[in-house]
Amino acid sequence: MKNILVVLSGGMDSTTLLYEAIALVGKTNVRAISFDYGQRHRRELDCAASSCDRLHIEHDLVDVSNLAALLDRSALTGDFAVPEGHYAEESMKATVVPNRNMILLALAAGKAINEGCDTIAYAAHAGDHAIYPDCRTEFADALSEALSLCHYEPGIVLWRPFVEKRKEDLVLLGEKLGVDWSLTWSCYKGGSKHCGKCGTCTERIEAFGIAGVEDGVIFE
Amino acid sequence: MKNILVVLSGGMDSTTLLYEAIALVGKTNVRAISFDYGQRHRRELDCAASSCDRLHIEHDLVDVSNLAALLDRSALTGDFAVPEGHYAEESMKATVVPNRNMILLALAAGKAINEGCDTIAYAAHAGDHAIYPDCRTEFADALSEALSLCHYEPGIVLWRPFVEKRKEDLVLLGEKLGVDWSLTWSCYKGGSKHCGKCGTCTERIEAFGIAGVEDGVIFE
Repeated sequence: MKNILVVLSGGMDSTTLLYEAIALVGKTNVRAISFDYGQRHRRELDCAASSCDRLHIEHDLVDVSNLAALLDRSALTGDFAVPEGHYAEESMKATVVPNRNMILLALAAGKAINEGCDTIAYAAHAGDHAIYPDCRTEFADALSEALSLCHYEPGIVLWRPFVEKRKEDLVLLGEKLGVDWSLTWSCYKGGSKHCGKCGTCTERIEAFGIAGVEDGVIFE
Repeated sequence: MKNILVVLSGGMDSTTLLYEAIALVGKTNVRAISFDYGQRHRRELDCAASSCDRLHIEHDLVDVSNLAALLDRSALTGDFAVPEGHYAEESMKATVVPNRNMILLALAAGKAINEGCDTIAYAAHAGDHAIYPDCRTEFADALSEALSLCHYEPGIVLWRPFVEKRKEDLVLLGEKLGVDWSLTWSCYKGGSKHCGKCGTCTERIEAFGIAGVEDGVIFE
């Protein structure tokens, strides 16, 4: 890994990953990419841009919102209610954007090839696995193999350093790396403040609580 | 395989695949998807639409041309000369769209999930392998594994019935299935007629010649 393209949602996991990539190869060898896929929680894109500004990292925002017609069965892009409380399999299935991660990682790999990056960094972590099929380790392992073969040797590396980590581990790591938590976004509801009730807000609050770290975002 | 989404470029290979899918599961269980990624040879998209019209198959054209900024290093989308004559590795590397096939197949899989299709059909064939990394069998095998895991059980099947076939075999198969060759497009140059000189035209002429079948397209 010499040049890393970080897939940056603007959430706390991928923002921590951005800091981790910089710690590993230095600012001049890191860039970031974010995707506007019509998500209701667009505030995360502003956060992604703000973190990159703060760190002086080159950042591309790719508009894939015209793909919403492909992805219109999901609560994150369509006209569904966002489930509240803990992630329960049935209710959270409504928030699955069909094949979102493969689409975004495939686009990121295309960008990486264009920019001469050898690695894309992906913030999947242990807490993701159960709910979203394309957050499972076996999916990422298979996609990693495909990415290693998608271009001339040696292909693209899918770097997933958080795959065995819990969300509270990421809070501790991010705190050590100096992440500005106020420039991260978790809430799926799309309001101006974090709702504190949806699945991702609930997880965020728990993770900071377990880690014993003060969060920088404001809840409603 | 019960419901098949055919990834249809409008070329002779994927058009033959469309007919093969219909032969297998019937018209009402087949649909097609094409992608406008800013390719110079846009005539192939008109051909894709015309074949679907003729066959009364539902057809989606997805505009991904705004992704051209990601893919701008390629002769197929950018401002490069298209190499002439036989596919030679060095000259044809200029026509590689970075990670194009993974991007388009990932989008197709998202669409398949949305439409309740269990299979996406992909016209990769034996003649493709050497030149484009993402046309190689080992790439498609790895991607196939990822697609089987990208959604809830049983995932999406990547059907590649042509993977061991040569282009002349596809001509013979298409002829048997009643493909209207005049509604297929091969030329990479983007003119109103096939140039007869670029790599894909050269391959097309050879394949029809070996198969002993009369082509339906007009060359300059």
